Amino acid sequence: MRPIHGGNLAWAAAVAGCSPSEILDFSASINPLGPPKSAIAAIQAHLGELSAYPDPNYGELRTALGQSHQLPPEWILPGNGSAELLTWAGWDLAQFAKTFLFTPAFADYYRALKAFGAKVQQCPLELEVRGDVTFAGLNVSTESSLLPTSECGLLLNNPHNPTGQMFSRETILPYLEQFALVVVDEAFMDFLPPDEAQSLIPVVQEYPNLVILRSLTKFYSLPGLRLGYAIAHPDRLQSWQQRRDPWSINTLAAAAAVAVIQDREFQQQTWKWLPSARIELFEGLSQISGLQPYRSSANFLLVQTEHSSSALQKHLLQHHRILVRDCLSFPVLGDRFFRVAVRSNAENKRLLQALLIAKYYD
Amino acid sequence: MRPIHGGNLAWAAAVAGCSPSEILDFSASINPLGPPKSAIAAIQAHLGELSAYPDPNYGELRTALGQSHQLPPEWILPGNGSAELLTWAGWDLAQFAKTFLFTPAFADYYRALKAFGAKVQQCPLELEVRGDVTFAGLNVSTESSLLPTSECGLLLNNPHNPTGQMFSRETILPYLEQFALVVVDEAFMDFLPPDEAQSLIPVVQEYPNLVILRSLTKFYSLPGLRLGYAIAHPDRLQSWQQRRDPWSINTLAAAAAVAVIQDREFQQQTWKWLPSARIELFEGLSQISGLQPYRSSANFLLVQTEHSSSALQKHLLQHHRILVRDCLSFPVLGDRFFRVAVRSNAENKRLLQALLIAKYYD
Repeated sequence: MRPIHGGNLAWAAAVAGCSPSEILDFSASINPLGPPKSAIAAIQAHLGELSAYPDPNYGELRTALGQSHQLPPEWILPGNGSAELLTWAGWDLAQFAKTFLFTPAFADYYRALKAFGAKVQQCPLELEVRGDVTFAGLNVSTESSLLPTSECGLLLNNPHNPTGQMFSRETILPYLEQFALVVVDEAFMDFLPPDEAQSLIPVVQEYPNLVILRSLTKFYSLPGLRLGYAIAHPDRLQSWQQRRDPWSINTLAAAAAVAVIQDREFQQQTWKWLPSARIELFEGLSQISGLQPYRSSANFLLVQTEHSSSALQKHLLQHHRILVRDCLSFPVLGDRFFRVAVRSNAENKRLLQALLIAKYYD
Repeated sequence: MRPIHGGNLAWAAAVAGCSPSEILDFSASINPLGPPKSAIAAIQAHLGELSAYPDPNYGELRTALGQSHQLPPEWILPGNGSAELLTWAGWDLAQFAKTFLFTPAFADYYRALKAFGAKVQQCPLELEVRGDVTFAGLNVSTESSLLPTSECGLLLNNPHNPTGQMFSRETILPYLEQFALVVVDEAFMDFLPPDEAQSLIPVVQEYPNLVILRSLTKFYSLPGLRLGYAIAHPDRLQSWQQRRDPWSINTLAAAAAVAVIQDREFQQQTWKWLPSARIELFEGLSQISGLQPYRSSANFLLVQTEHSSSALQKHLLQHHRILVRDCLSFPVLGDRFFRVAVRSNAENKRLLQALLIAKYYD
């Protein structure tokens, strides 16, 4: 069964004929510098607390997250990964006539929208290459819709997955005036230093129709812990909290979260590492004939290929134990794209070497 | 804000004027012998795997749980605590005209039923004391309902919380013929050795309209980890899996689960400890005038009191840093009942001593 998400090492190991730990995983867009030591230390320090229930209000965690975003704690709701919070955003979106969704879109958006029967209106991004720069244009085509957008929801992510394109705050603000509810998944926004980020968090208190989803698992390399949060009007978050189970974040994950968001050293290291590692990988990919990488603001690159990406994926697994993300779960892209995470320089080189050889086998 | 669940130590510590770790918690019904060392060892052994996503199929965990119940893995779905799975059971129940619910009922049942708008028909248990034995009779009164039960769901737990009453398998089986869907929460069934338990797991493959919810957090003393599972027809579990987020159990919790369900030594210790500890606590409570404990098959006792149980709770917190569970969240019971977990002999004695003195202050 082909996985629809990245990071399915059990599947990859079966294809490669090795153990999951032997796979070099470029398919999940996880920071290779992590997890930070502060996360592991916090988990160790809280192992003695497992026989108590977590605080159902997650007061300490909400306060810490609130301080990091200069928001009161009640504007923040932690979740069992941002995927859990996406489910409840999906419930809210299903209350409207339609949800506009920029495509290609992360497969889990379709899951969350389908969960409670939201109707989806796909809006293809305008993907174009202008000179050296790939540009994914946001453009909500409402012509085909007979409904006013004021009765509809909008779901987008920024930076966008899988293109890596970041939209400016100014590009998104008009949609907040136009749509009944706007859900912005900022799972990869942390990878930009604060002065470059285009997060909508600074304006969230002005828009009760805005929900921002954030992930701690990608930047801090903790997808095994499940850790995300939503930022939105307290009334909305309270309604989610009343619907979902009372203790959705485990004690160890909550403790690790409090530690990592205060780990300035790890944050600085990541912001220092990423731009040069990304440009090296981008340039390496550009030099391989038949491959065309897209410019990205995130920690991954979308690559267009002249050959079948699923065949390439299989080849890389079987011959190099390297897992790249095919894009079959993004139906707009199909079999001519793949996505790779930016990893350490040595690992990126291993990928580039393998891709150079792979061409001849393909 | 008074908590509606047991184990809210943050709230209790604020009332008692101490730190949460100084509270002796009788409010959450957690095995005092745990967590088992095998759980902590498994967590430690998997700390290096946090930068990978969990296997979304949880193959290893489902296989281990399946083996322990002699069921194929696809009949089992692990969850982020049984509370998460209750949410999805609540969705299924909301598809029927009504859900019958035995009362008093765990407050989280109302949350899960309300989440998706299920209509609740309350069925009061017949609570009566016959000689030395308290008897909670199951009796679905369908007279007041104009609907045939074949269009309705039924939600019950066994052993029952908060009475501790266990219903025989034969008592429940007729409901499986009668109702469209029967959800049985067996969160406390593990506390009975296999030859005394009245689980419906042995018959689950005969009833596609049966859902069994199990918890690993109470018996193994791991509420901070969040760990439960549902047992039901694979089609139903697959529909839940498609609705919820893809990685609902964190890596450390999944590893601990695999370890503890194979920890025969811990299981034997618990089955050896509980019956005598429970009877000592029961007899101690019986001897305090004004208190009437109910016979229980689980690891907690419901106690009827002549005085206000919320005043008693406050007194015990402020004078003894002991937290008992008031029953205000069980509206049928009101302020004349409280619930206590069975803890170690020394801790149970501390409770009995405090209750003896408390009488004079009340």
